[in-house]
Amino acid sequence: MQDDDVTIPLPYWYGRPDTRSEISALVVSLAESNAPRLVRVFYDTLLLDIDAASFLDHEIVETRLVGSLEKWLRDVFQNNDDAETATAYQRKIGEVHARIKVPLHIVMKAAALLKAELSIIFLKEIEARETLAEALIFLNARMDWSLGIMSEAYMLGSVRRAQADEAFRLFAVGQDVSIEKEAQHAALMDWLQSILFPLFDDGPQTEMMPLGKSPFGIWFRHHADLVFQNSPGLEAIRDNLHEIDDEILPRIKKAKQSDSGDLRVQLGKLRALVDETKHIIASMFQSVAGIESGRDPLTRTLNRRFLPTIMSREIAISLRTKAPFSILMLDIDHFKTINDQWGHSAGDNALRQVVEVILNAIRFNDFIFRYGGEEFLIVLVETTAGEALQNAERLREKLASHQLVISDGQTINITASIGVAEYDGHPDYVQLIDAADQALYSAKRSGRNRTVIAGKKAA
Amino acid sequence: MQDDDVTIPLPYWYGRPDTRSEISALVVSLAESNAPRLVRVFYDTLLLDIDAASFLDHEIVETRLVGSLEKWLRDVFQNNDDAETATAYQRKIGEVHARIKVPLHIVMKAAALLKAELSIIFLKEIEARETLAEALIFLNARMDWSLGIMSEAYMLGSVRRAQADEAFRLFAVGQDVSIEKEAQHAALMDWLQSILFPLFDDGPQTEMMPLGKSPFGIWFRHHADLVFQNSPGLEAIRDNLHEIDDEILPRIKKAKQSDSGDLRVQLGKLRALVDETKHIIASMFQSVAGIESGRDPLTRTLNRRFLPTIMSREIAISLRTKAPFSILMLDIDHFKTINDQWGHSAGDNALRQVVEVILNAIRFNDFIFRYGGEEFLIVLVETTAGEALQNAERLREKLASHQLVISDGQTINITASIGVAEYDGHPDYVQLIDAADQALYSAKRSGRNRTVIAGKKAA
Repeated sequence: MQDDDVTIPLPYWYGRPDTRSEISALVVSLAESNAPRLVRVFYDTLLLDIDAASFLDHEIVETRLVGSLEKWLRDVFQNNDDAETATAYQRKIGEVHARIKVPLHIVMKAAALLKAELSIIFLKEIEARETLAEALIFLNARMDWSLGIMSEAYMLGSVRRAQADEAFRLFAVGQDVSIEKEAQHAALMDWLQSILFPLFDDGPQTEMMPLGKSPFGIWFRHHADLVFQNSPGLEAIRDNLHEIDDEILPRIKKAKQSDSGDLRVQLGKLRALVDETKHIIASMFQSVAGIESGRDPLTRTLNRRFLPTIMSREIAISLRTKAPFSILMLDIDHFKTINDQWGHSAGDNALRQVVEVILNAIRFNDFIFRYGGEEFLIVLVETTAGEALQNAERLREKLASHQLVISDGQTINITASIGVAEYDGHPDYVQLIDAADQALYSAKRSGRNRTVIAGKKAA
Repeated sequence: MQDDDVTIPLPYWYGRPDTRSEISALVVSLAESNAPRLVRVFYDTLLLDIDAASFLDHEIVETRLVGSLEKWLRDVFQNNDDAETATAYQRKIGEVHARIKVPLHIVMKAAALLKAELSIIFLKEIEARETLAEALIFLNARMDWSLGIMSEAYMLGSVRRAQADEAFRLFAVGQDVSIEKEAQHAALMDWLQSILFPLFDDGPQTEMMPLGKSPFGIWFRHHADLVFQNSPGLEAIRDNLHEIDDEILPRIKKAKQSDSGDLRVQLGKLRALVDETKHIIASMFQSVAGIESGRDPLTRTLNRRFLPTIMSREIAISLRTKAPFSILMLDIDHFKTINDQWGHSAGDNALRQVVEVILNAIRFNDFIFRYGGEEFLIVLVETTAGEALQNAERLREKLASHQLVISDGQTINITASIGVAEYDGHPDYVQLIDAADQALYSAKRSGRNRTVIAGKKAA
């Protein structure tokens, strides 16, 4: 290789992209001599970013991160021979980012910032056209290599973490919720008692333990959000805790000391707040019990949340084994009139019985999801469109002839429209669902109580 | 702005990076005129990559992806005014990638490949130093902007998916496993019966349904790996299925037709394979029942898998509320001698009783993990190092004075060494665990049966 030739570093598909040693040395020296400014711009910008600032603060930046960034800049651009150690180092950074949950896109943004700053420096400092181009290409190739390795490690770590977090959440929810509910009810009452009894004593009020410092308060901060994820009740309880500790307790203390009539007023407020808190906790525990079972509470069909999981699994199996599979999109015709005419509980009854009919018509190994109000998505594994059409027609006939008991022995008949689609090899499951949806729409439009295969006109 | 000035696009921190319209037009035209070659190099390289090739095949590339890539190249570099639409388009690509699980690092690698190819083209085609530099900088800024937006959407999608996948897995595992076990056992026997009975009939053997096509086989392909994730038993059953369907069944058919003595031999083999399959399935169901409870099966302490979840939660709470927290790393001294002298079940008994003592010494709101064989990690929420030290000392004394019943009324005494560390503000929980670990090590080295605070010498 002639040193004055332009050398394009191979993209990191082939390992760490390298370049002529002069170029690497030049980039390292420009990065090093400008490091203080680069680091300042980097963290100043990072701290302006709302997402990024939430896990950085000035102290952490000053004491711990400035040195790491300077080291990283040097390491990324050095042309030493030990590409393996260099790769391991980038991977470790990705793992740490995953552990401390620095979002990947923030890291990528930050890298783009450094690239822009370094590009300006190169433009000023490097005169020769080819050298400038090589330096710019090398700058990007190496940073991209580093980001690529980081991303792979980051993704692996993040996905594992997301799984573990979810498993822990479900574990926490799955613990005996009624025991937990009673335990927290009791903890709240224990605290209330610790406040109330000393009020009957003569003399000045002794120290009152804030509710936030009590076992109930600690449970609320460290455990409650896990079980009740994002429930609006959490915010209400947080407000109540603050009001009790910051407003009511100091006033109770003052009223006791001055023996004023305000004591009764404040105790009334305390009681109302504690009752409300008890009530919210109880109803949050109540709602948790049903939701997390993985099934739609009304029809016991699979929770729609699992649709991406099942569809992607079936696509992967189909691509691997070359076995076909099909889906049915089934919608009950004129369902609204049942609700309107007989009331919602009649509608609920009807839905449950429709699901019974469907379950009897499909196999143990198939999957049924509640897709919408009165819409069901059925995954028929190892089934061609032709077989699926036969199944759908049989199911449609069964439904049409089935007497649904809605209330007081009153029976009605319903019909359903069905769209059928066979998996066609596209990796994105949304396309398959869209196809079945369009077939269903076509079945509806052409008169209902019929089955249409995707891509065909309604009969 | 003077058009002949060099313009550096701002990094995408500030939105989509833009440049002079001539530069954008130049880059678009070079990308378009070279699109066929770029697309070919891109997919040829992608299909060489083992990771990437698993979800791409030549047909998908030819029929669906070539056009998308050409459109993407044009869209990324166009300088139109509608940055919002352009951003939404990049985001959508990220969402699709997450849905079809194209790993992000593959997308980044692929982008680096395109950058390298385009850089070579720029070097050849653009003469002026400044124009070349601007084009290179713009190329990278825009591609990085696109990758950044894609990554954000991708991560969001992937993390949600990982959670849903895990939730579904736990849901599948949590279904009544004993019912599922019996159902699959029965399905296997049903199939066997469908093979055996016709053998007693005279005349040629009727069609034999392959085990793989039976409900058992379908269950195995579509459900089993979900419950038994990566269990080595799955591979063994897969082998048995192939052997039965591809070797034994054809030989049985042949032996029946020729009425040869080989029938008995082949039936013996079939029976052995079916028995083995039954046995593997049963033991896999057995092992699943315990593992997934979220607790260590022996001591009922929390599964170590949840450690990152809890530590990160506590770090986030501590950073937000400024409340301290501490961890204890506790190791039973000379535990090996208990196992050696009294046997493993005595050791197991001892461990369970140690956990009882620990549970009585900590609060309901604290967390205890089995960290290693005889090592426990305890998270004390809202606790300073000083308080944690007091707790640890109390716990150490209780353990030392507690008589452990190991078997037949035989009692022994044990001691424990404890390392204490208070959270110091570093976002990475591994550092906190390391600190407690070192303190534990220091307690061990200075004679055992003692407590050491991280950063202090053993007393």
